[in-house]
Amino acid sequence: MKINLERLEKNLKELSQFGRNKDGGIDRSLGSEAEEEARSWLLEKALDMGAAIKIDAMANIWINWKRTNCENKPITLGSHHDAVPDGGMYDGALGVLMGLEILQTLKENQVPLNHPLQVVSFTAEEPNPFNISTMGSRGVTGKLTLEQLQASSHLITGESLTAAIKRAGGNLQGLLKAQLRKNDMAAFIECHIEQGRNLYDNQLSAGTVTKITGIYRELITVKGEANHAGTTIMEHRHDAFLAAAQAALVVEETVKALNRRDVVGTVGWFEVSPNSANIISGNTKFIMEIRFPEELIKQKILLSINKEYTEIENIRGLCFHREIILDQAPAPMDDRIMKIIGEEISKEQSPLPPSAEESSGLEFVEHVPMLVSMAGHDAVHMSDITKTGMIFVQSIEGKSHCREEKTDSKDIEIAGNAMLNAVLRLDKELTYENLN
Amino acid sequence: MKINLERLEKNLKELSQFGRNKDGGIDRSLGSEAEEEARSWLLEKALDMGAAIKIDAMANIWINWKRTNCENKPITLGSHHDAVPDGGMYDGALGVLMGLEILQTLKENQVPLNHPLQVVSFTAEEPNPFNISTMGSRGVTGKLTLEQLQASSHLITGESLTAAIKRAGGNLQGLLKAQLRKNDMAAFIECHIEQGRNLYDNQLSAGTVTKITGIYRELITVKGEANHAGTTIMEHRHDAFLAAAQAALVVEETVKALNRRDVVGTVGWFEVSPNSANIISGNTKFIMEIRFPEELIKQKILLSINKEYTEIENIRGLCFHREIILDQAPAPMDDRIMKIIGEEISKEQSPLPPSAEESSGLEFVEHVPMLVSMAGHDAVHMSDITKTGMIFVQSIEGKSHCREEKTDSKDIEIAGNAMLNAVLRLDKELTYENLN
Repeated sequence: MKINLERLEKNLKELSQFGRNKDGGIDRSLGSEAEEEARSWLLEKALDMGAAIKIDAMANIWINWKRTNCENKPITLGSHHDAVPDGGMYDGALGVLMGLEILQTLKENQVPLNHPLQVVSFTAEEPNPFNISTMGSRGVTGKLTLEQLQASSHLITGESLTAAIKRAGGNLQGLLKAQLRKNDMAAFIECHIEQGRNLYDNQLSAGTVTKITGIYRELITVKGEANHAGTTIMEHRHDAFLAAAQAALVVEETVKALNRRDVVGTVGWFEVSPNSANIISGNTKFIMEIRFPEELIKQKILLSINKEYTEIENIRGLCFHREIILDQAPAPMDDRIMKIIGEEISKEQSPLPPSAEESSGLEFVEHVPMLVSMAGHDAVHMSDITKTGMIFVQSIEGKSHCREEKTDSKDIEIAGNAMLNAVLRLDKELTYENLN
Repeated sequence: MKINLERLEKNLKELSQFGRNKDGGIDRSLGSEAEEEARSWLLEKALDMGAAIKIDAMANIWINWKRTNCENKPITLGSHHDAVPDGGMYDGALGVLMGLEILQTLKENQVPLNHPLQVVSFTAEEPNPFNISTMGSRGVTGKLTLEQLQASSHLITGESLTAAIKRAGGNLQGLLKAQLRKNDMAAFIECHIEQGRNLYDNQLSAGTVTKITGIYRELITVKGEANHAGTTIMEHRHDAFLAAAQAALVVEETVKALNRRDVVGTVGWFEVSPNSANIISGNTKFIMEIRFPEELIKQKILLSINKEYTEIENIRGLCFHREIILDQAPAPMDDRIMKIIGEEISKEQSPLPPSAEESSGLEFVEHVPMLVSMAGHDAVHMSDITKTGMIFVQSIEGKSHCREEKTDSKDIEIAGNAMLNAVLRLDKELTYENLN
């Protein structure tokens, strides 16, 4: 039994038309007409297949294929259907449509399953104009309050999130009742493009995900002294901008010293005040971000950074105000699902020569790469309530969040068939487990 | 003979009322009502004194006291009456009113002069909403084209510069005819607050200026590669922001290594793109500024910077695009005027103990500090057409361009009397020179 690659790619192409802009990118964020059209198209697809549909309080779409005489909790496959501004056609969409393809393949082949199978398409996973990302998965796993959601409105149109969710078929008032509880589900698997270059650089189609990165962010304000850029001699300066520049380079240096592929540090947002060519900056703000696979590594980095920042403060005679604005722990994937996905990939994908495996810098089990996801996903939040796994598919040159995002047919096929077989194995193994 | 300190301070206080805002700062840029009121007040003062008034094409105000039988070119004293937003009451105003006070003192004492004496108040010296600073002095010394001036309009109100200058009593059409030619004037002296801390740190009232700093600016664009802050491992990055941060620190390091009080380097304007916490910057721009007393020093700094920037480009695999946006040579003051001002200051001001002179880091001649002006002034442009000198007066804590700007009465008095006597000596010495 194989997935129908042609059908899957046809669906990918059809879905990608919603929000396609003149440059070839896709604009499909919550609140837009394109996002509504994508939802209608998805619902129609599901109905055509004879599946049942449920839209929850967060407007997440649940597509169910429930066999009779089946008392187990469902196995869920899915991702999200929204896109970043000017984004590509695979991020999110591939995971939803892969789920749908597997459901359809199993249904066509009349495969008897021990668990109901469902596909989910989450609302607003990407950064969006309502300023709440992974909105659908966080909402439905109890990580967002009703107050927080009701306070949000569209940055440009001003539409309230309440109204936008309602238009999409949800209802924020039903949030509490809709919340998933631990073990409401047997398992969750998300298929997603890698977004990094690990698979591409090694010419591999797919890998299994071991964990999803932790993300730590500080908003740092450097308070120095604004002054005339001509008349203030160098030794009298307390240049907030230069201190912040130095602090950003410290992040890079500290993270690089660890020499790991699963730890990164970035300063991407930086604001100088008063920002005038002839005035020494008195105040500079920046956001420092660290992504890490283990709490201990984060602690080690922060310890080193703290020491260096104190030194900068002392030498330059100015002051760092540091505020933690995000501290999301790494989310480990379920061991069994990770292993099953890995084993099924190994049956579809040719192994690398041993020397290539060794020089790749990656970890392999049975010739399948065990990857850390360096981007956040809906799977982070699903892992709080159910056994969760992810399968990564190569994205060419590691590109994502851009219109150039591309994944080869052969890689989709290999990942799809591995995922199909993983679902079948999970369906059996989880049942035996329940019997024990 | 002494200046009338009480009258001078009364005038300073009166002029400071025009544009005084609720926080105590002064808003008096070209185009504002306050600037017009300041002009009217100045003209009235001049008429009360019985002086003749001329307003030139650039709306610069010229106040003349012409003795009969006097064929020499005039000696001119002055500065500007406009202010930076939320500025102080001494920058510019002190120079104009000091000129007026000296003129009035000489007139009252019926001192016979060999040269006509005139006071000038230049239009729009400070950065202003028409985006042309030292506008009046540049205009009247032939450094601005009519096209350039006519193309400018007020950033907020949209009023054309042509109209604003007309309201102020000028007429851009008359620009060519109004231009000063070399030796149209016998000398120009500008009295100004120091704006730096050299006089304040050594508790000195006044100093003579040896030259006005050269200013060099580059707009530098760093082109790297925007990428996902999570999925791009450290060694695959071409982070434009980090390269620019490093480049800014290179400017500081290079300039500091020279260990001079008359060389500074600053990055005050810095713009990161796309400026998002989770995206590695693909493009960062900044303005690098160097102020220097000699062309050779600038060359030396640039040589060192060029080398370091090439290294950053190579190591980080990105590219610096550098554009020179300002290259203003240092303006040396006239040797004789510098010397006369210095000698006259030495008669009014108590010398420092020799050890304090030595440890100050300043150059002294006859116990008078010889200062490099690290800010630009109208005197830069006047030095192109006539013998020019400047006298600096202490500003407390070196503050300027802010409402806290303050200068002590005793410092004003010492500087004023030194300048009065310098004018008398110049009046004599320049006449003897003409006879030779």
